[in-house]
Amino acid sequence: MDPQMFLDIANTVTKLKMYPYFDIANYALMCLSVRDDTPPPGSGPNAFSRKHPLSCWLSCMLICFAGSILANLLLGEPCMIPFKNHRDILTATAVWYLIFYSPFDIVYKLVKFLPCKLCIGTLKETQRAHKVFHGVTHTAKLYPQAYLLIVIIGTVKGAGSGIMKSFDRLIRGVWIPGSNEFLQPSFYTKACLIASIIFVLEKTAVIVAPHAVIYFGVVIFFVYFKLSSLMFGIHDPFIPFENLFCAIFLGGMWDALRRAISKEAPEEGNGKTKADKKND
Amino acid sequence: MDPQMFLDIANTVTKLKMYPYFDIANYALMCLSVRDDTPPPGSGPNAFSRKHPLSCWLSCMLICFAGSILANLLLGEPCMIPFKNHRDILTATAVWYLIFYSPFDIVYKLVKFLPCKLCIGTLKETQRAHKVFHGVTHTAKLYPQAYLLIVIIGTVKGAGSGIMKSFDRLIRGVWIPGSNEFLQPSFYTKACLIASIIFVLEKTAVIVAPHAVIYFGVVIFFVYFKLSSLMFGIHDPFIPFENLFCAIFLGGMWDALRRAISKEAPEEGNGKTKADKKND
Amino acid sequence: MDPQMFLDIANTVTKLKMYPYFDIANYALMCLSVRDDTPPPGSGPNAFSRKHPLSCWLSCMLICFAGSILANLLLGEPCMIPFKNHRDILTATAVWYLIFYSPFDIVYKLVKFLPCKLCIGTLKETQRAHKVFHGVTHTAKLYPQAYLLIVIIGTVKGAGSGIMKSFDRLIRGVWIPGSNEFLQPSFYTKACLIASIIFVLEKTAVIVAPHAVIYFGVVIFFVYFKLSSLMFGIHDPFIPFENLFCAIFLGGMWDALRRAISKEAPEEGNGKTKADKKND
Repeated sequence: MDPQMFLDIANTVTKLKMYPYFDIANYALMCLSVRDDTPPPGSGPNAFSRKHPLSCWLSCMLICFAGSILANLLLGEPCMIPFKNHRDILTATAVWYLIFYSPFDIVYKLVKFLPCKLCIGTLKETQRAHKVFHGVTHTAKLYPQAYLLIVIIGTVKGAGSGIMKSFDRLIRGVWIPGSNEFLQPSFYTKACLIASIIFVLEKTAVIVAPHAVIYFGVVIFFVYFKLSSLMFGIHDPFIPFENLFCAIFLGGMWDALRRAISKEAPEEGNGKTKADKKND
Repeated sequence: MDPQMFLDIANTVTKLKMYPYFDIANYALMCLSVRDDTPPPGSGPNAFSRKHPLSCWLSCMLICFAGSILANLLLGEPCMIPFKNHRDILTATAVWYLIFYSPFDIVYKLVKFLPCKLCIGTLKETQRAHKVFHGVTHTAKLYPQAYLLIVIIGTVKGAGSGIMKSFDRLIRGVWIPGSNEFLQPSFYTKACLIASIIFVLEKTAVIVAPHAVIYFGVVIFFVYFKLSSLMFGIHDPFIPFENLFCAIFLGGMWDALRRAISKEAPEEGNGKTKADKKND
Repeated sequence: MDPQMFLDIANTVTKLKMYPYFDIANYALMCLSVRDDTPPPGSGPNAFSRKHPLSCWLSCMLICFAGSILANLLLGEPCMIPFKNHRDILTATAVWYLIFYSPFDIVYKLVKFLPCKLCIGTLKETQRAHKVFHGVTHTAKLYPQAYLLIVIIGTVKGAGSGIMKSFDRLIRGVWIPGSNEFLQPSFYTKACLIASIIFVLEKTAVIVAPHAVIYFGVVIFFVYFKLSSLMFGIHDPFIPFENLFCAIFLGGMWDALRRAISKEAPEEGNGKTKADKKND
């Protein structure tokens, strides 16, 4: 590809307006995730939205604006700020209405249709990069040297819906304490973490490259893994690296060593008793 | 009734001081609701307050000042502000003490006595209107055009105790995730929502009437339904309207249509399988 | 002891720098409490930290900085402020790493070794007094006359980890709604409450004594009870006073009186039915 053309595309991507298409894609995917997460206890697949419209709406709004709400809460700003913007709330409400209450579930089925899903996914990931970047920029203005804080807020802005999920379920009357984003971070949370770190490295001039290239690189990274997740079911390409890191730094090696040493006298700590070993 | 006299009464109601009588009525009803919500597991009806006075006190304080605490949290203001006002806290503590620890439960029984309850209920509803109005006014000053935000804060100020209930129970060691104010909004939450909308419409000059008349109208509306709830057990006059709205806009009609169409081939979505129908 | 020497020691204690030794002692004890609170379900004693390092780290950080985070939340300040200070976070992370992942658990075993524990405990209690004092001073600057608020923030700063525990467990996927700091306040919470009240009384000139003496007194009070708890298993010296207070003011006397009166006709309220009595 012509480098100049690449730069032009990158520049265009950097300056994209999020409203309306990218935001709508985000709202659609978020409402979809709420709908698919709602358990259909006995009754129809969409019974929850019929019985508890308020809870359903609030739950969707909280998930749609999870990044901003959480970031505002962490930064001590009014966490209701997203509700100030009527245009966004009305758009999100319209999307919510169409996903849950469209005649014959036509919009729901359309959004679930793979080609549509790919298209919406691409838009959503572009918006995610935008949110991470703006989270980083905003926090860097407030706390210039607090790199850890900047990275956290960038991650929260981009992957807030995952972190909000436990609380969001509670609003829908569902409580699953044994599962949260910190116990099993999803790929998106990790990707947002990496994107935030890249943007911070750019700000501190460790990575020297045109801003548009870095930004576009992050967008491609997000979109590429979204598409490969949707099409090939590759859910988390980081896992091998994590396993390696855990084995080296987080005790894996020492545990193996201890197990090797204490083979004659296995203790509880190695996770297997003698009886277990016989059964292996 | 003479219109001038009506206006005079309305004006008087608008300028009523909340402290001490209206506030005390509010604290009394809130402490009562905490006491009646505390489960007596095996032991006496008041055992919780004997074993866990701190948790009991904190729980009551949080419910008494729920509106302010939640509104402050949502607006990014210090949520402990209500604890700054010693007079209110001391009054609430005195009421809490009398409700839970009065000799022979005399105060508790008195407050539960119907004529007293009617009187306290009337005072409490007047105070509720006052809180909704001040929530709306305060938020309108901070965010003049953010009507949705104003309505939300108005509602939260007036009906905060319902929203706080889940968290408040947690402080008392009780956790009922399947029930919250958003799943089954109580009548008071809906009434506060309507009152907030009325006050916003007044502010935006959609409703043109003397302020005292609107305010007094809201007070009468609150008091009327409180008394009819206490005396005749009418708990939610909005339900017919809600059902109509749900049927028209929130999928009821389409579901019925789908059910009618798919009668020959019932799908899971209509909530009944063929086997179920035979049993009907 | 020579009074002058005592004053000199007190002055030295007042001006102690918390970083690094006192802070490290705090982080070590907090990480220890997290590690001992993590349930080993079937697998090894340290399996949680191997499987969920992110959740483990976040949980430890929240507990290490619980006082500041909660106080900031209550005062409407950004609750992420502790994450701004890289030095503290890096120190806490290093301590966390050593406690959970040191080869052969050597650091964990060392910290658990009684003489070490006594030493670390002493440092930690000195730091606690420091945190309570700074919580009181900081809040007194913001809200000069709000004594209740000052006492609450002082207590929260000193004993935040106890209050944070329920939420902290949730991050680790553990949820025990029936137990929280308000239901059974620990000795440390009560001691922090008393220390806060003492500092407030000093500020309002009710207690007139050199500041260093009061501060040193509080440190000695904390350290003394920590050591007696570690060495002699005296966990809560306040319990007799509390029982007395409850008996006199919180219904104990009236309940006894009622039981005495209604002996002939025992009601549910006295906690024992006739059938129970026969079995006694």
